[in-house]
Amino acid sequence: MKISEKALKCNLSPMRKFHPYAVAAKEKGRKIYHLNIGQPDIATPPAYFDAIKNFEQPVLEYAASPGMPVMIEAVRNYYEKIGVHYDASDILITTGGSEALSMLMLCILDEGSEVIIPEPFYPNYNTFVKAAGDVIRPIRTRPEDGYHYATREQIEPLINEKTRAIMFTNPGNPTGAVLTHEEMRLIADIAKEHDLYVIGDEVYREFVYGGEKLATIGEFDDIAQNAIVIDSVSKRFSACGARIGALITKNKEIIANALKFCQCRLSVATLDQVASAALYTVGSDYFEAVRKEYKLRRDTVMKKLSQIPGVICEEPKGAFYLMAKLPVDSADAFQKWLLTDFEDNGETVMCAPGEGFYATPGMGVSEVRIAYVLKQADLERAMDLLALGIKKYNETH
Amino acid sequence: MKISEKALKCNLSPMRKFHPYAVAAKEKGRKIYHLNIGQPDIATPPAYFDAIKNFEQPVLEYAASPGMPVMIEAVRNYYEKIGVHYDASDILITTGGSEALSMLMLCILDEGSEVIIPEPFYPNYNTFVKAAGDVIRPIRTRPEDGYHYATREQIEPLINEKTRAIMFTNPGNPTGAVLTHEEMRLIADIAKEHDLYVIGDEVYREFVYGGEKLATIGEFDDIAQNAIVIDSVSKRFSACGARIGALITKNKEIIANALKFCQCRLSVATLDQVASAALYTVGSDYFEAVRKEYKLRRDTVMKKLSQIPGVICEEPKGAFYLMAKLPVDSADAFQKWLLTDFEDNGETVMCAPGEGFYATPGMGVSEVRIAYVLKQADLERAMDLLALGIKKYNETH
Repeated sequence: MKISEKALKCNLSPMRKFHPYAVAAKEKGRKIYHLNIGQPDIATPPAYFDAIKNFEQPVLEYAASPGMPVMIEAVRNYYEKIGVHYDASDILITTGGSEALSMLMLCILDEGSEVIIPEPFYPNYNTFVKAAGDVIRPIRTRPEDGYHYATREQIEPLINEKTRAIMFTNPGNPTGAVLTHEEMRLIADIAKEHDLYVIGDEVYREFVYGGEKLATIGEFDDIAQNAIVIDSVSKRFSACGARIGALITKNKEIIANALKFCQCRLSVATLDQVASAALYTVGSDYFEAVRKEYKLRRDTVMKKLSQIPGVICEEPKGAFYLMAKLPVDSADAFQKWLLTDFEDNGETVMCAPGEGFYATPGMGVSEVRIAYVLKQADLERAMDLLALGIKKYNETH
Repeated sequence: MKISEKALKCNLSPMRKFHPYAVAAKEKGRKIYHLNIGQPDIATPPAYFDAIKNFEQPVLEYAASPGMPVMIEAVRNYYEKIGVHYDASDILITTGGSEALSMLMLCILDEGSEVIIPEPFYPNYNTFVKAAGDVIRPIRTRPEDGYHYATREQIEPLINEKTRAIMFTNPGNPTGAVLTHEEMRLIADIAKEHDLYVIGDEVYREFVYGGEKLATIGEFDDIAQNAIVIDSVSKRFSACGARIGALITKNKEIIANALKFCQCRLSVATLDQVASAALYTVGSDYFEAVRKEYKLRRDTVMKKLSQIPGVICEEPKGAFYLMAKLPVDSADAFQKWLLTDFEDNGETVMCAPGEGFYATPGMGVSEVRIAYVLKQADLERAMDLLALGIKKYNETH
């Protein structure tokens, strides 16, 4: 009996390899500060739980395959508010942004076709792309430049006859880089000139800290047929466990083909759709409070990083991640050591080592992703542990 | 910009083409009795809604990728009760049985490899298999034989060097055929001899009407490495909208590879897992009542069918579907006519025409699938409408 080639090409999460060391450290009584995972600690708006408690139908039925009208309308209305008009038929509700990505890759990729993605990138893109039989062509970036990727010189040489799409997370995971309007316009132009799909994974849209207008690749009318937006309630409303996302595009051919996969899996969970639609009733004060909290955290992390000699990190403009180059020989070895050999008052810290975020072998060796999803005091302590760890690690290695 | 070959090979649901006619009929004020869809009308056990109402955590977090321990334990314990021991690590919780099928096909199929499936079969198998780049090799059956497929003569000649698996729905959708213990043993033997996976889609397990013991392909210890079970709470507990299923196997290689896809989509909806685990606390009286109700319905449909001249239909032993050969030239044309040209006291009926359940072109032309998911009086009326429709259709065609 055989395992498929495409499954064998995929990998377990690169973060997973440190899990056994974390378990062992906890068994020794160590407290671990987790800067390695993107699970927000912000409370989910009560509207979610209220909607579920008010559900009164006796049979929990399948929902319609493209999504429940109430959920589609919530998404449509949200985009109207940020100035982009979609018809209800431009929106497919999916089981998280993950399913939207999975279906989209199946729709646009053949064996050997290529997707251009700036690296470092969200590691699960590897599996979505490989499951569809495909190749990631990374845009190279540098920590010294704040991981910026949106220049014609960086992108255009990567385009060849196999290229199907340019894809990016904006605001960025893992880098926190945010595209300016001019940069988005440039990517739109390149996609248009070369007849490519342009895929904006915009699940962190609200998380920008410089007063920027909420942006989307869907706002450029002249590339309406090229643009595809991946969306989700997970980060927007701290509702990761709802698994409600959306695939949004005015390209009817994409919608018609993605609908085949929607029908095949029948529907998205009924109660989660009803409750996620209710999330969209929260006011702008919710987002302002959340933004303020994360901005404070970002500033804390940046301040602490700036005090560690040898760290390279440009201030990230969005999401709740940053990527930093540490003065260590190997972030992998350092992270392992933090869990096995280091402690300060019984405490240690976890980041996500950088190599797993790169497609190019040998890149990201000294980098880590830091998710600033901890409360202020914990975050300060975590960063102090990181600073102390770097010092001690370099004294002994 | 291109759409992938694999997406183009997939089709929209074959049932969907009658939807516009149904909408038009309803707009004319027609009442339609739906025998065409498998949405049970049985109330979902209140344990589901109670569990959700009692959920008190402030942040709706991601669950663990393989599934929440409470849900895995509910499934494990259920199998213990029917006499099959699984370890927790043999069970992956999935977003419906659909996701389990999708992940499994990605794990075992390469471009051009084949899966042997008795036809008629659940039409979504087409998309799961084609999305993984693959071919369904159908086992031919006949309405006159009650669609039985489990003989060495029918199965073995279909095996070739590209064959990866034998897959079946048992109890059967759309036929209602139920494998005997001897037939399951035979399929197990064939899988073992030819080193094939054997995939039991057993989401209708409880729906057997002859007092049969609840059976599973997982009960044969000697093919533990070959056997993979697809499971779901959808039909078992009339909780289709929960989208909670499972991929179950003692084959660690399958689990390890499917886990890559589980990690990639992060997790299954948290509340739906908590609530679905609670479903497993309902007692055997629930299943007895449900079985009794469906048996009554099956008997009603069979009695009514036996009174229509020219219908061929062996009594189905399980699930809540049957396949019948009608005395009409084309079930497609007949179904369309039922919606556009027929009515009796303002009412008409919908079945699912048979061709969409076959891989072999030209098969199933005069057949329909009937889902007996209506209450007694509605079911009788629906069958009377079908009988009257057949009579009138043949008078005018």
